[in-house]
Amino acid sequence: MKKYSVVHFLTMSVATGALVASCSSAKTQPTEDNNKHSPNFIILFADDLGYGDLACYGHPTIKTPNLDKMASEGIRLTSFYVAAPSCTPSRASLLTGRLPMRTGLPRVIGPEASIGLPASEITIAEALKEKRYATMCIGKWHLGDQEKFNPVNNGFDEYYGLLYSNDMQPPWVNTDKPLALYHNTEAIEHPVIQQTLTKRYTEWGTKFIRTHADKPFFLYLAYSMPHVPIFASDEFKGHSRAGEYGDVIEEIDWSVGQILATLKELGLDERTMVVFSSDNGPWQEMPDRMFGNDSVQPWDCGNTAGLRGHKHLTFDGGQRVPGIFRWPGTIPAGQVSADMASTLDIFPTLLSLADISIPEDRVIDGVNIIDFLEGKTPSPVHQFYFYRHEMLQAYRRDSWKLRYLPNEKNPEKSTLQLFNMDSDPYEMYNRAKEFPEKVEEMTRTMSDFDEQLRESLQ
Amino acid sequence: MKKYSVVHFLTMSVATGALVASCSSAKTQPTEDNNKHSPNFIILFADDLGYGDLACYGHPTIKTPNLDKMASEGIRLTSFYVAAPSCTPSRASLLTGRLPMRTGLPRVIGPEASIGLPASEITIAEALKEKRYATMCIGKWHLGDQEKFNPVNNGFDEYYGLLYSNDMQPPWVNTDKPLALYHNTEAIEHPVIQQTLTKRYTEWGTKFIRTHADKPFFLYLAYSMPHVPIFASDEFKGHSRAGEYGDVIEEIDWSVGQILATLKELGLDERTMVVFSSDNGPWQEMPDRMFGNDSVQPWDCGNTAGLRGHKHLTFDGGQRVPGIFRWPGTIPAGQVSADMASTLDIFPTLLSLADISIPEDRVIDGVNIIDFLEGKTPSPVHQFYFYRHEMLQAYRRDSWKLRYLPNEKNPEKSTLQLFNMDSDPYEMYNRAKEFPEKVEEMTRTMSDFDEQLRESLQ
Repeated sequence: MKKYSVVHFLTMSVATGALVASCSSAKTQPTEDNNKHSPNFIILFADDLGYGDLACYGHPTIKTPNLDKMASEGIRLTSFYVAAPSCTPSRASLLTGRLPMRTGLPRVIGPEASIGLPASEITIAEALKEKRYATMCIGKWHLGDQEKFNPVNNGFDEYYGLLYSNDMQPPWVNTDKPLALYHNTEAIEHPVIQQTLTKRYTEWGTKFIRTHADKPFFLYLAYSMPHVPIFASDEFKGHSRAGEYGDVIEEIDWSVGQILATLKELGLDERTMVVFSSDNGPWQEMPDRMFGNDSVQPWDCGNTAGLRGHKHLTFDGGQRVPGIFRWPGTIPAGQVSADMASTLDIFPTLLSLADISIPEDRVIDGVNIIDFLEGKTPSPVHQFYFYRHEMLQAYRRDSWKLRYLPNEKNPEKSTLQLFNMDSDPYEMYNRAKEFPEKVEEMTRTMSDFDEQLRESLQ
Repeated sequence: MKKYSVVHFLTMSVATGALVASCSSAKTQPTEDNNKHSPNFIILFADDLGYGDLACYGHPTIKTPNLDKMASEGIRLTSFYVAAPSCTPSRASLLTGRLPMRTGLPRVIGPEASIGLPASEITIAEALKEKRYATMCIGKWHLGDQEKFNPVNNGFDEYYGLLYSNDMQPPWVNTDKPLALYHNTEAIEHPVIQQTLTKRYTEWGTKFIRTHADKPFFLYLAYSMPHVPIFASDEFKGHSRAGEYGDVIEEIDWSVGQILATLKELGLDERTMVVFSSDNGPWQEMPDRMFGNDSVQPWDCGNTAGLRGHKHLTFDGGQRVPGIFRWPGTIPAGQVSADMASTLDIFPTLLSLADISIPEDRVIDGVNIIDFLEGKTPSPVHQFYFYRHEMLQAYRRDSWKLRYLPNEKNPEKSTLQLFNMDSDPYEMYNRAKEFPEKVEEMTRTMSDFDEQLRESLQ
């Protein structure tokens, strides 16, 4: 077990921020219309897209008119986190509302991994089946490529996409298993024609919406882009002033526009919550293995608009991502909030909206944030734990974020940083020396939380 | 003269981007209404405010509803530059349309400096006097504190403000001259009550507008904030989630709101072009002298939303600033553009709009950008020269920016960087090795331009 040498903790009676068994206050919408009673949900989830990659988050040259409009029609969050700075753990948490350590997937897994999302985990799709939602997963899964881990065995009626990252093939990753496009559990295309992935995902997405317009549905569309190697369709090559990476983002923006246009055309706007986010920060400073041929360039990645760090790091550049929620008639238009929330909150929020009880036999780390999204209350989220693999590296509570990475062999190489994320969202000014009591108290909270979490896994 | 050792240049026949004597194509508005014929101009100019400090440029926690609205009612530029990364040269260029080296002010000047803006320079205010504009300068001048350099001796009917930076007093700067608030050439307050400066500047600004509502006017309101030491009025203390710096920015935003509300109330919206910008990037990494007492903190400064560098550097973080132009009925609402433009372009644009000939006896480095602001054409600006003090350090042409700082004694310490500012506005990826011909050609253009400029000064 990890040691926290700067503090001695005597008690475990610390608020964990976790939504535990007693919480079952699902929101019930008092209407007689079953369609209204069970809203549709669409999660649009990009891969490695950075906090700064959308125009509405400040990118100077990439144009994202559809996402900008989506944001202006709903709420745009500027302190929205993912549960991990890399793909597999981030996605496991999105779909379960639980921290990666709890799902058994704290690290990225590769082709033919022996592990995947355990059958005991409940995904959003599985939970929504209680209310007979039609469910589809499109795009990148990355929660296990064995058949038992396939989306269709995790609550989704149908699946179309890649089972893991689009670089998990030679020359980037050593594997004999060919990267393939799957329909349900069947590999239907290999090599994968990546140029048209975003376009085809979009077509399958709009088709799914059209087919299920008259009953509650859940669409989880996880783009394979802009993870490297990046590809745009012919229609989007040269589309962006910002070069090839910009083309890829602008095609994703087009895709979002197609999804929203389909909802509007079918009169589903007010019955559908749409969420847009990304699985982690941009993959800056890629390892050498990515440059085995000339098809990936160091600049084939996104940006953080100044947030410190990137994918794989627990600085905010690794875990703070765009977070846009749109639901006309329910989420008021034109909201922007720096209140905290995370992908962990999506599971309990969606279940509550569908009037489904939160599972009582396990810890759900997220909380229902619908009142916040509706502009009725501040966010109920006041703390967030930043795990990198099995290691708790940082903890944010309200304005303050502590990063503490002890190095017991070489204490001088330990990291101890305290940032004020409201006045210094860029994590430039370490205030640890000014606030020793805050450091000690937050370190103790981190330690207690981590110990409790580990004990619960035994 | 500076040497450019990597190129041998044989010819001087290089496009300079400068607007020279032959240009007198002032825009004439074919109306009979003299008020329409001579629009009002307001330049709101912040001090050390960073590219990323406004919500509409991506700040996660600072709220700037008035500036956001101003941007949404006009055009917001995302590649807008100042002519120098520090105060005096930036301001000299704003008011004259000429690069700092031409105005004789390539460096920041202090209290009791022997130099200031030469009498031979023509400020916007002086030029507008040809059409009997009422003119007022409010706020920070910093173009000389001797009486002959005072704004009232440079085309302004009236002046109210500080003659230089608000830190130019002990303990930050060694000087016996007290920092004073001036009304015209008279020191009316010292020590200066800085807490209310933004508020008082605003009151003087709205009073000036009211007093001159029936004739053409030019108001140059140069806030002393957010230059350190930072101050907000009692009404704005604790106003911002982003702390004291946020309070200061949010008070400037309030001030902009007051100016715009006054125009609206007086029915002047469609007769007035309002510009908002900043004199240079945020003052990150301040020198030790700034921390002589506890009143200035390292984090009392702005941010760049990820642009590299800060004040005093020729990376874009030092010279790319917010650039918002609003003129209802003339500049279409809701425009955002990554086309280049700079504060150098304000002089010829304003003169042209007032139907005043551009001076023909000197080089004006800016160009008239009104057709671009009106959305009729792309920006006519395709190149930009980045001077730091007397040294030309960088050159941008369209997408590409070359930074070349030769170190002849120690060539290994020379800087040679080529960035694609459209795909990499953050100057993270040096592409110089990929494009040797572009490097050589751009270096030659830089060298030729610099040589021409120096010859013209002899």
